[in-house]
Order: sequence, then C-alpha cells, then structure tokens
Amino acid sequence: MARFLKNTDARKGMHPGSLVFIGKKKIEDCIVSMIQYNADSFDEQSLDEISDSARFVRDDFFAWLNVDGLHCSEVIRNAGKHFNLHPLLLEDIMNTGQRPKLEEFDNCLFFVLRMLRFDEQEKRTVSEQLSIVLFENLLLTFQEEPGDVFDPVRERLRKQKGRVRTAGPDYLAYSLLDTVVDSYIEIIERLGEDIEDLESEILANPSQAAMEKINAFKREMNYLRKCIRPARDMVVQLLRIDNDLIRENTIPFLKDIADLFTQAAEAIDTYRDMLNDMMNLYNSIMTNKMNDVMKHLTVFAAIFIPLTFIAGVYGTNFDHLPELHYQYSYFIFLAVLFLIAVSMLIYFKRKKWF
Amino acid sequence: MARFLKNTDARKGMHPGSLVFIGKKKIEDCIVSMIQYNADSFDEQSLDEISDSARFVRDDFFAWLNVDGLHCSEVIRNAGKHFNLHPLLLEDIMNTGQRPKLEEFDNCLFFVLRMLRFDEQEKRTVSEQLSIVLFENLLLTFQEEPGDVFDPVRERLRKQKGRVRTAGPDYLAYSLLDTVVDSYIEIIERLGEDIEDLESEILANPSQAAMEKINAFKREMNYLRKCIRPARDMVVQLLRIDNDLIRENTIPFLKDIADLFTQAAEAIDTYRDMLNDMMNLYNSIMTNKMNDVMKHLTVFAAIFIPLTFIAGVYGTNFDHLPELHYQYSYFIFLAVLFLIAVSMLIYFKRKKWF
Amino acid sequence: MARFLKNTDARKGMHPGSLVFIGKKKIEDCIVSMIQYNADSFDEQSLDEISDSARFVRDDFFAWLNVDGLHCSEVIRNAGKHFNLHPLLLEDIMNTGQRPKLEEFDNCLFFVLRMLRFDEQEKRTVSEQLSIVLFENLLLTFQEEPGDVFDPVRERLRKQKGRVRTAGPDYLAYSLLDTVVDSYIEIIERLGEDIEDLESEILANPSQAAMEKINAFKREMNYLRKCIRPARDMVVQLLRIDNDLIRENTIPFLKDIADLFTQAAEAIDTYRDMLNDMMNLYNSIMTNKMNDVMKHLTVFAAIFIPLTFIAGVYGTNFDHLPELHYQYSYFIFLAVLFLIAVSMLIYFKRKKWF
Amino acid sequence: MARFLKNTDARKGMHPGSLVFIGKKKIEDCIVSMIQYNADSFDEQSLDEISDSARFVRDDFFAWLNVDGLHCSEVIRNAGKHFNLHPLLLEDIMNTGQRPKLEEFDNCLFFVLRMLRFDEQEKRTVSEQLSIVLFENLLLTFQEEPGDVFDPVRERLRKQKGRVRTAGPDYLAYSLLDTVVDSYIEIIERLGEDIEDLESEILANPSQAAMEKINAFKREMNYLRKCIRPARDMVVQLLRIDNDLIRENTIPFLKDIADLFTQAAEAIDTYRDMLNDMMNLYNSIMTNKMNDVMKHLTVFAAIFIPLTFIAGVYGTNFDHLPELHYQYSYFIFLAVLFLIAVSMLIYFKRKKWF
Amino acid sequence: MARFLKNTDARKGMHPGSLVFIGKKKIEDCIVSMIQYNADSFDEQSLDEISDSARFVRDDFFAWLNVDGLHCSEVIRNAGKHFNLHPLLLEDIMNTGQRPKLEEFDNCLFFVLRMLRFDEQEKRTVSEQLSIVLFENLLLTFQEEPGDVFDPVRERLRKQKGRVRTAGPDYLAYSLLDTVVDSYIEIIERLGEDIEDLESEILANPSQAAMEKINAFKREMNYLRKCIRPARDMVVQLLRIDNDLIRENTIPFLKDIADLFTQAAEAIDTYRDMLNDMMNLYNSIMTNKMNDVMKHLTVFAAIFIPLTFIAGVYGTNFDHLPELHYQYSYFIFLAVLFLIAVSMLIYFKRKKWF
Repeated sequence: MARFLKNTDARKGMHPGSLVFIGKKKIEDCIVSMIQYNADSFDEQSLDEISDSARFVRDDFFAWLNVDGLHCSEVIRNAGKHFNLHPLLLEDIMNTGQRPKLEEFDNCLFFVLRMLRFDEQEKRTVSEQLSIVLFENLLLTFQEEPGDVFDPVRERLRKQKGRVRTAGPDYLAYSLLDTVVDSYIEIIERLGEDIEDLESEILANPSQAAMEKINAFKREMNYLRKCIRPARDMVVQLLRIDNDLIRENTIPFLKDIADLFTQAAEAIDTYRDMLNDMMNLYNSIMTNKMNDVMKHLTVFAAIFIPLTFIAGVYGTNFDHLPELHYQYSYFIFLAVLFLIAVSMLIYFKRKKWF
Repeated sequence: MARFLKNTDARKGMHPGSLVFIGKKKIEDCIVSMIQYNADSFDEQSLDEISDSARFVRDDFFAWLNVDGLHCSEVIRNAGKHFNLHPLLLEDIMNTGQRPKLEEFDNCLFFVLRMLRFDEQEKRTVSEQLSIVLFENLLLTFQEEPGDVFDPVRERLRKQKGRVRTAGPDYLAYSLLDTVVDSYIEIIERLGEDIEDLESEILANPSQAAMEKINAFKREMNYLRKCIRPARDMVVQLLRIDNDLIRENTIPFLKDIADLFTQAAEAIDTYRDMLNDMMNLYNSIMTNKMNDVMKHLTVFAAIFIPLTFIAGVYGTNFDHLPELHYQYSYFIFLAVLFLIAVSMLIYFKRKKWF
Repeated sequence: MARFLKNTDARKGMHPGSLVFIGKKKIEDCIVSMIQYNADSFDEQSLDEISDSARFVRDDFFAWLNVDGLHCSEVIRNAGKHFNLHPLLLEDIMNTGQRPKLEEFDNCLFFVLRMLRFDEQEKRTVSEQLSIVLFENLLLTFQEEPGDVFDPVRERLRKQKGRVRTAGPDYLAYSLLDTVVDSYIEIIERLGEDIEDLESEILANPSQAAMEKINAFKREMNYLRKCIRPARDMVVQLLRIDNDLIRENTIPFLKDIADLFTQAAEAIDTYRDMLNDMMNLYNSIMTNKMNDVMKHLTVFAAIFIPLTFIAGVYGTNFDHLPELHYQYSYFIFLAVLFLIAVSMLIYFKRKKWF
Repeated sequence: MARFLKNTDARKGMHPGSLVFIGKKKIEDCIVSMIQYNADSFDEQSLDEISDSARFVRDDFFAWLNVDGLHCSEVIRNAGKHFNLHPLLLEDIMNTGQRPKLEEFDNCLFFVLRMLRFDEQEKRTVSEQLSIVLFENLLLTFQEEPGDVFDPVRERLRKQKGRVRTAGPDYLAYSLLDTVVDSYIEIIERLGEDIEDLESEILANPSQAAMEKINAFKREMNYLRKCIRPARDMVVQLLRIDNDLIRENTIPFLKDIADLFTQAAEAIDTYRDMLNDMMNLYNSIMTNKMNDVMKHLTVFAAIFIPLTFIAGVYGTNFDHLPELHYQYSYFIFLAVLFLIAVSMLIYFKRKKWF
Repeated sequence: MARFLKNTDARKGMHPGSLVFIGKKKIEDCIVSMIQYNADSFDEQSLDEISDSARFVRDDFFAWLNVDGLHCSEVIRNAGKHFNLHPLLLEDIMNTGQRPKLEEFDNCLFFVLRMLRFDEQEKRTVSEQLSIVLFENLLLTFQEEPGDVFDPVRERLRKQKGRVRTAGPDYLAYSLLDTVVDSYIEIIERLGEDIEDLESEILANPSQAAMEKINAFKREMNYLRKCIRPARDMVVQLLRIDNDLIRENTIPFLKDIADLFTQAAEAIDTYRDMLNDMMNLYNSIMTNKMNDVMKHLTVFAAIFIPLTFIAGVYGTNFDHLPELHYQYSYFIFLAVLFLIAVSMLIYFKRKKWF
C-alpha cells in the first residue's frame, strides 16, 4: 500500500501543475524513441528531444513517441509545449504515484495505469507508471524506465501483422493496453500457482512460516487489486465516453480488454477468498494437531497416575501392612498394576480419547 | 480458479484476432453436423466442412450447424469466411478461457458460456466452452468435444414436440440455454446433497478430513459461481438489448431461464453460507470434544494427586511418626484415601466439571 | 435450500411448456371452488371442473376460482384453454419449485409465491406454492393442498366487511397477499421468540445442543429469506408496473404490504445477526468455562506438587539424614507442608489465578 | 427486535383499514390539545374531542393538534372523519408497530417515526410511535402517551423565538423532527460513552459479564438502527418528493436534519464496529490471561517433576545402592536438586516460557 | 467517534439558526485577516471586524477573508449581515461538530470539512473545523484556531507562483482543498508507516500491548474515515453541480483532488484490512507460541512420569521383592530408566510432538 502513496509527501506544498519529478529515479538519461508507420511503410528512430519529432514527422503517417525516464523535466516540458498538453496532465505524468485513471482533454485523451512485473529477486510485484496520451494521429507514451511488455506490438508493427499498421493510434493504444492486461493476468496466474502450492504445503506441513506466507500473498493481492481495479474502471469509462479519438471499429476490441480486466479483477477476488479459506484451514489443522498431541500425552500421563499412587501405598512404612508379607504379593501387585493400565487403555480407546 | 485463466499465458504476445486454438485438444478430428428443419420436415446430416453447408442449405428451412472440436483452425476460419464473422468473435471461439458474455455484432448475436459436467473419476466439475452464434435463420454452435446435453432438444426437433420446429433459431438457442441451465441446477443439487450429507457426517464423526472436504466444496462452489454468475448476467443482458434476432414471442421464454439462472446463482450463495456455518460447527464440535477429554482426564488426575501425596507422607522415614505404629492405621489410612477421593468426585460433579 | 430446487431434476429434458406436475402429490383429488360476489350478493360453490365456471359465472359479478391440488394436469389444462393462459404460465403453476416472481401477460398478471406454515411435528417451516392469476373481473388461485390462510378473507367476503366486496379482484389479490405476509410475520415472530429463549438458555446452560440449535435456526432463517426476499421484490415490482389490472385506489394498499414485506425481510436479517452474536457468545462462554475448570484444577495440582516432592525427600533411604531423627521433626514436617500449601494458595489468589 | 413486530399477531385476520388499537395501552384517557398561532398571536388549549377544534379554529391561524394516547378509537375515528383521512392512514396511526415511513395522500403528507427515550430503570431504550399528518395550515400529531421532547418547540412558539411562528406547519413539522433527531443523537452519545467506558473496563478487568454487556449493547444498537435508518430514508424521501405542502424555504432546514439523521446512522455503525473490535479484544485478553496462568503453572510443575523423580530413586529399597551410605550424600543430594531447579528456571526464562 | 457528536448535546433545545458557539474555545480573541489580490498586486492586512472589509475591499480585486476562532458570535453575526449569509449557514459555521458537506445557497457555495493534524503529545489525530464560503469574487474561511496548512498557498499568492493570482476565488478554494487533502494523505502515510512497523514488531515480539495498539490504530482509522469519506463525497458533488461560481477551467483541478480524496479513502480501507490481517496474525502467533511451550513441557513431564512410577515400585516395602537383592540391580535399574527416557524422546521426536 505504502508503495502507492509515498510520493505525496514530496508533492506537499508545491503549486498545482508544477513540473517536478516525484518518484525514484531509475535510469540516468531519458530516452526518446519514435515509430512512424502507415499501411505501407514503417520507420523507427531514436530522438534526442521530443521537439525533434517535428523534423521527422510526416503527415501521412501515424506516429508513436515513447519516452523512457520521467525525471528529465526538460523533456516532459518540451513535450508539453510541443503538443500543447494541459499542465495537470504533465504533472500527473511526472508524479509516479498516480491512481489509474482516464481524463479527457480538449485535444487528447490521457490515461495512466501501471505496468506490473514480478521481481524475481525481491519476490514481489513491482510496478512502473505508464502514461498514454492519445491524439488523432499520434500516440505518446511515458514510462519510468526502459524495458516494457510492448515488444510484441512493435514486432507486429514491423512485420505488418494484424490490423495495427492500418488502424490508427487508438488501435495502437488498445494493443498496448492489451499487452498490459495480459501481463496482469500472467502475474496473477503465477501468484495463483504459488498460492495453490501453498495449500498443499499447509496440508502436508503446517507451520508458522505458512501463515506468514499467506499474509504476504494477501498483501500482494491487495497491491494488485489497487492497480487493476481502477484500471478496469478506466477501460469501462473509455467505452462509455463518446470521443472522436476512439474510432467506431476499435470499440469491439476495447470491449474485449474490458472483459480481460474484469476477469483479472475477479481472479484476484477469488484468490483472496482462497487465502482466507487457507488461513482457516491452517488454524484448524494447527489446533487439531495440538489437540492430538495433548490428548495422547494426557492419556499417557493419566495411565501412570493411579499406578504411581498404588506403588506409593505400598511404600508406606506402616507397622501393620498385611499385604507386604505374603510370599507372592509383589507379583500380584505387578499384575494388578498391569491390569489397571490395560483396562484404562481400553476404556480411553473406546471413548475415542486418543 | 486457475482452471479459467490458464490459457492466457499462451495467448500473450499474439496479435488480436489471430486464429490459434488455445486450450486442451480433446478429440482428434473436428466434427461438423447440420440439422435443417421447418414446421413440416426435418433433415440431419454430417458435413466434411462448414462451407459444404452452402450446398445443402435450403431457403425455407432453419438450420443448426454444430462443430465439435475447436482446434481445427481451418474449419473455424472457413466458418468465419462463409458466415462473415468478426475476427474477435472467431478468436473468442478458439480461446477456451472465455468468461461467459454476450456480444452484439452487425449480422449476428454471439454468446459464450460453459457447459458443466460432473466428472465421476476426478470427483470435480469439469467444463467445456460453448459458443453460440445466432443469425436470422441459422444457429451456429461450437463445442470443445463431442457429447453434450442437447440430445433432448434434438429429440424434440426430430419428433416435432413443442414449438421448437416452428419457432426459429432464437427459440432453438433458448432451448439450448435451457438445457444448459438445467444441467447447472442438476450439478448444484448433486453437490448440495453431498454438502448436506457432510453436515450429518460432521455431527456424527468430526475429523480433519471433513474440514478438508468443506474446503474442497468451497472451491467447487467458487468455480461454479465463476461460471454461472456471468452467464446469468449474459441472459439478463439478452433480455434488455433490443435486437431483431430475438423475436418478440421468445422473450417470455428467456425471462423464464433468467429466473432459473438467478435461482442457480442464489443456490450457490446459500450453499456457500451453509459451508461457512458447517466450518464453524466443526470447529465448535472439535473444541468441545477436546475440552471434554481434557476435563475428564484432568479431573481424574486431580483426584489422585492428594492421595499420592498422603501415601508419600507415610512413606517418609522419620524415626518418630506415631501413626505408623497403631494396629489399624493402614486400614484407616486406606479408608481416609477412599473418603477423600469420593468427596472430591462429588465436589467436581456438583461444580459440573465433568 | 434443497427444498427449493429438488424438482428441477424431474424437469430436465422436458420441452418448455409441457404440462407435467413436478412436486410432491399432497392430496388425492383436485378441488375446484368458486366464489362470486358483488357489492350486493355473494355466492359460493364447489365445481367439478374449471370449465363448469362458464355455466355459473355472471357478468355483473367478480369471481374467485380456487384450485387445490396441482397434480391434476387435466384441470390445469382446462383452465389454460378456458382462460387462454400462456403455456409457460401453466408450466410454472404445475412446477412447485418456483422462485417467487411476477409476470405480465397480455390478458393477465401472474404471480407466484410461497405460503409458509410452521409444522409442529417436524419442527420446521414447510411451504406450499401459491399461484395467483389476476384478470379484469376474475382471480384464479392455485394451491398444492387444501387448507390455507385465506379464511379471514372469505369471511370478510361473506359478511361484507371492509371494501373487499366492492373493490374488484385486484383488491382481493391484495387481501390474499396481505394474509400471506401476515403469516410470514407470525412465523418469524414465533422463531424470533424461540431464538430469544435460546439466548437465555445459552447463558444459563451452554451445551453442544445449543450450538446445533443455532445452526438449525440459521438454516430456517435462510429458508425464510429465500421465500420472502423475492416475494418482496415481486410486490415492489407490482407497484412499479403500469398495468390497468391494478386499479388506482388499490395502490396505497399494495404500498402497505410492500412495507410489511420489507419489515419481514429486515426482521430476518436482524435475527440472523442475533444468531451470529449468539454463536460468538456461546463460544466465548464455553471457552471461559473450560478455562475456569482448567485453572482451578491446575492450581489444585500445583499446590500438591512441592508437597509430594518434600515427602519424597524424607522418603529417601540415606544413612545420614539428620532431620529424620529429631523427636518432633514429623510434626515440623507436617507444619511446613501446611505452611507451603497456604502460602501458595494466597499467592495464587492474589495473582487472581483462580 | 421483537419489540417491533409483536403487534402484527393481533392484526392478523382483521380487514385492512379496521380501526383497532394495537399496542400497549399506556395511559387511561386520551388527551387532545391544540395550539393556534400566527406571527402576532398564540393560543393554547386542551380539547375534549378532535371535532371541537372546528369551533375554535380560526382561518388566519396555523394550528397544531396533538393527541396523546392511541387506544381511544373514537377520537381517532373522529379525526379521520373531520380531516378526511385515508383509512390506511388511520390504521397506521393506531398500530404502534409501524416501520418509519413517509406517505403522500391527496390532501396531506403522513409520516410515522419513533421517539426514543432511555429508560433509566430498565436500562434500555424504549420507544413510542409518533405520527405526523401535515396539511396546508394544520399539523396533526399522535403519540402513545403524554410527555414528549417537544417542549422546546412549544416554548419557541410561545415566546416567538426564531421563525417558527411565521413559517407554517411544514416548518413546525421540521422543528419536531429536529428535536426528535436531537434526542436520537443524545441517546447514541449516552450509549457511546457507556461503550467507551466498557472498553476501559475490559482492559482493566475482563470478565464474562463484559462479554454479556457487549452483546446487550449490540442488541441496543440494532434496535436503534431499526428506528433510525428508515427514519433517515423517510427524511431523504421528503426532500425528493415535489409536494406543495413543503414550502420552498423549508427545504434547507430539512436538508440540515437529513444530515443529522445520516450522522446518527453513521455513529451507530461506528459503535457497532467498536463493539466488534471490543469483542475481539476481550477474547484476545482472556486467551492471553489463561495462557499466562497455564504457562506459569506448567513451568512450576515441570521443575518439580525431575526433583520428585530423583527423590523417588533414592527412596528405592535396593540392597546395594552405594550413594545412600556416604556421610554427606544427603546434602549433596539436596544441592544437586537445588542446582537442577535453578538451571531449569534459567533455561525456561531464557526461552521466555514464563 | 464521540469526538464528533459531543456538541449536539449542547445544541439540544435551541431553535434552528440560533448563533451560539458549540465546541471547545481554543483561543482568546478571534482574528480576522484579509488578503486582496489580482494578477498585478497583492495586499495582506489584519482587520478588527469583518465589516471593516467594506472599507478596504476594492472592486478589481479578489479577496480572501479568514477568521480564526469561532466563539466570537459577534464577528460571525457581522459576517452574516455583511455578506447576507443564510442563518443555517452561520449556525453550521459555529457548531464545530459538522459532518463534511457541501451546500448551495442563492448567493454562495458553502462547504465544511475538517483539517487534520497529528498531535505528537496525545499521539492521536486531532481535527479542526474548516468552513469555506465561496462568492463570485470573495472567499470566506472560518477556522477554530490560528495555525493552518495554508501557508504554501499564501506564499504562492504573495510570490505570484502558478495561476492562483489570476484564477479567481474558486481556484483559491481548490488550492485550499488541495493542501487539506495533502495533509490527509501525509497523516495516513504516517500512520501507515507506524502500522507497518507494528507488523514487524508483532512478528518479532508479539505481546498484549501490540493487540491494544492494533485496536488504537483501528480507532484512529475509523476517525479518519469519518472525516475523509464525506469530504470525498463533497468534492464529487462539487464536480456534479452546475454552479456558475465554479469556473469552467477550475473543473480539471477539482477532478484532480477528487482523485486524491478517493486515493486517501482507499488507503484507509487498505490499512484497515491490514490491521485485521495483523490481528489474525497476532492471534495465530500467540496460539502457536503457547502450543509450543505446552508441547515441550508436556513432553518433558511425560518422560518423567513412567520413570517416577518405576522408582515408586522399587520403593515399596514388600518382604519378597527379588530384584532388590541382586548385586547390580540398582545400576540395571538406572540403565533401564535411562533407556526408557531415551526411547520416549526418540518416539516423541519422530511423531514431531516437539
């Protein structure tokens, strides 16, 4: 949770629309790259500055400008000037603690969401803010660091697979959202498998560690829910607004990813239910195990208690204790103890006390 | 849960609308069969290819084309071309991890849902994806494997029972949905009976196994809920859209199955509540049982403790211990022990400690 | 719960609208009775067949036809023909597993709900399906067996009390719903009193049986909720539809019973909350009682443990054990034991350990 | 809860609109009092009958008629005739088990709610039904017994404070609702203070009695919620209906009490959460306390167990037991026992077992 | 909770709109200060009375009047007269127990909310009521005491940073709300960090104190929720009303803080979930720890029980007890005891009983 809000502390006291990067600087230099395409041709290049795009951009092309690294306020400010972006939009791009949302501006659509990645080392999900600005013929994307899940989209652009080359930047935006939601589902599945493994582990060998793992998974699921639920709302809102930037025939595709987002959100709820059930199961198993041990030990003790007492009786030093003086009384004594022990065992067994 | 999302992994990175089968291949060859009917005649045949239907289809007939097996992308692609289906629709048919949903296209209505079957061997519910495409005079259905719950509908078509022969493919679609929801309810009832048996079992003989069964039933109910809830939403949506493909006089029938879906969804919630109550009952019984054993054993031990102490006192080797030397002191000693034991028993009994 | 769905199994595979009775046959022969009334006169008779009503019915009268017993498909079919009822309506009448609902047809309003009765022998609520079909001048009712809660209404019709004789069949339908909801509230109150008694019982004498009773009440409340909630929705829907069969001045009366249904549904929720609170109370009392016993017994044992040890020390056979040989050491020994016991008791008491 | 529905039993079987008092008769005779006022003058008198009001009422005045005691059906029937009230309205007035609600009639607005009072003797909240009928120039109120929370309003009327003298009966009705909601909040605060005291008590001295108090508070809160929630809905509905009886400039005042009702309802929810938290706290404290006792006693017992065993070994009567015969073996024996005890204590302490 | 309602007690019985301060008097004298600004100039001064503003106010300026201290009813009444404020508005300003809300009046918009501050000494959040009245060219704010979170806004006004100097009082109101929500988030973050620390503490060293801390945090979160949720609703409502006082281009900024309020409300929910999880974790750890101790001690006791019994057997004084008389029987006896102890240890270890 705290992973989300931490930035606001830094923001406090600044005037709205002030362009200060808030977040963790993840790379040294910002990288600007541009892809231009139409049905017939494809061009990919890396730029020094956003404003360079003016020199390269051609009218009969769609363009996708991607910026990696949000701490270069110069680059963002340039983009703002160049594409006439609202100051609040720019501020949202640079403040990496945004809740996923969609905003309509006069000249563009703006959506923020989070790209998720499972960090193998830290064993937890890490996220990166992805801002998308959709214009008539242009798509701007802003990420915190290089490396994303969009390579398949780039590949499809290059190789002219599917309709992405012909369909305009709204379809491109859809393609990006599509790969993002796919990565969500992949991460949920991965966690889901771990959760299911944990259930077997709990059944086989319940331990305090399992309990802590359950709690860790719950935290992870809470984090995913915080990322995915508002993202789903964003996509549903995208379907409902009536904005020319979203072309008619992109709508069915957006419906499709709305379904996927819903599926992801429901999967999270299901796993949360499973984790709660597992905690109950764990507690129940632990209690049963403890009860089992205690019952066995208590029965064990209970059998010796009267035996020890009887031995104590014949250890007394009374002058007149007739049983002590018979020839076989020791052996009778042992036999009686044995009989008592056996009949108690039988009695407890019948009562199902162990 | 994971049974639902597993496929998305394979999907990742493909372009939208790509026709690749995602799922478990359940049969070798795909089977295409066609039923043509009108009020007066009925014709049933098996085809080599979807496009063959062109040769056989007659204008004054309604037709039902069924495809078993979704891995033959050639067949699906042919169907797509032949009936002018949207690429997303085809993709949804071939990806067996769909969430039940309804989609309106220009020329047809498309709905996906899941057929459920209780697998006697694995002792769990398995599901198969059913895609229905409704045209003016034609119904297309796609299933993962041969064998379905539709034989009664085929029988009614053959034998001209009810209004199915006269009422058009929307009524036929209704009939299919009706048998599907009937099978849902049958499975819920079956699980419901097992759950009620489990309750008696818990009352008679609570054990860790019962706890694990409760959890297994919960998982099963979660799975059913995932299948049935969106299916109910789908049917309710079907009632609300105003589409000519749904004829006026089919609406009351659809209302009827909307009720059945709701009933099924409510039954699942009720059983989930029952399972939670059973878990509480189980925990309460286990605790009571344990408490009972512990109290009895502790009372038992408590009675011997002072007796053993007294025997210990007369086992001491003090030179001057007057009681040891009287004639009857051993018998008095025994009598006193007996008295103490009895009065403790009475005391504990009165305090209701056992 | 299963009490609700059981019938669907029989239904499976039948074509929609097939007139087969599904339920438990509760009487031998179906009974058809007819009441005709207007402001001035009243006539009551028993018919052999529904179609007989044609002979007796008079234009200037309102009529109420009641059928007891739903297994006589001939009678129902006749009714269907005679009054031009939709096949689905007839099927719903004969299938006794209906969820309470309201349906508008071209010529009539149809509502199904459940009459509840507390079975003194089985100690649980049993229900019977009541179907009401409302026409312009006629009310049809169908019940599973003779005996209902409508005698006060009949009495009011006979004795011309209130406005029922002048107000048309919609008001009559309201009167029937009114007595039904009154019987709901009566049953809830009855259960409510038992639940409140149970609370006193738990406080006085908590036992496993109380826990099982709580669960039984919960099941009963779940069952009532399943009957009453959709019935309330039905009445609310009745208020909202704009159908000429419901006369303007009947609306305030329907609002009144909508309030009563809401009150009943809320009462059920309150009792469910109370049952949950009682379960917590029960568990808490049981734990406290157990803790109390265990603490007393453990303190009791703890006091004897050092005493027995000291006795053991003087029971050793060391050649040189000086204390054994003094004149009064036995009495000193006893005094010391007594002192130890008393000081331990005081210590434990102060620590509030018992 | 049962405090609410109890009356319905009596109602069962009566025809709707029958004027029979249902409730507990709280006073002997019904009291009718009338206040007439306008901006300039004020007149207060007690009437023998409602119809007397005709003689006294003046056209240029607003009037407030109050009836204490609902069992005088003659008085209520007179009121009904005199002011042309709907039979259902009259029935609702006389049946003291009403759920708070608002109803619009042709000539008046009718609202029922409950006045709450904390009964010092029974230590629980008791309620009285308050019915308000609002006409153009007249306000009727019906209460179960004399004594209410409206004296400040009467005082303001007498002393011409605020706008109540000039603002018409809708503002007067608002003033009454305002004092009612103030009394709600006062009672909630009072309970709230007791609940907060209970928390300190639980921390200081947890006992079974505290648990029962928590449950009693929960019941009380449930009762308040049943009274206040529908009353809040009533006020919100009052804001939404467009009825001329509510003058334009009374609306802001009604909004104000809608806020107060909401605040009261939220306070109840907060206290319910607090009670749940307190129950968890109580259970946790009890378990910890028990665990603490058990651990201390068990450690205590564990220390003596090996000591007693060793004493037992030297109490055996073996002929050849060398240790027994050394000069100082008894003292060595005592020293060894002491050492064992101390080292066990240290071990347990380190393990934090007590 | 009680922190919220306490004032209503004092209010009881007063007529609506009566101007009496209800709350805790926090300063001696009320302080009135005025800021006037437009794009070009800025003027700040402290006034003796609200009405003084008339003398200083200039037409071509925007003005912000701030009052610290709500107990000076004279000042508030003057403000009311001077700016023509509705009596209810004035009453709400002076009653410091308001639920955050927005109200539209003819000439102004009025919103109340709470400023939060973490009191380092009392270790809990304290709040102060902030009332904002928005006119065309004027903003009035009322606070309980001097000292607020608005200094950055004043600084921006002075230094002409951002658009606050040019944008009118609606933007100024936004700026104030913005700093308020920032302070909310700061406090939540602070508590959030403490909560996360608590989790580590519980894992490292679970104690009753941790449990009480969890409960204290829960109370704190409940309090924050009570302040923030209605404030969020207020901002959302502000976006929806169509009032000229909110200029078109302020809307995006308000959307922005609506997001922040939502984020804050969601963070609270997340922390509440975390606290519940922590309580479960705590209970689970405590139970495990206790179980661990009990198992070790019980195993320890169980090993000595048979040994003590055997020693008891050889402590009996039977005349004929052959084992006592062999040369090495004592050593064999010791060896046998040792063997028994070791084999029991191995057995228990294998059974994983400790």
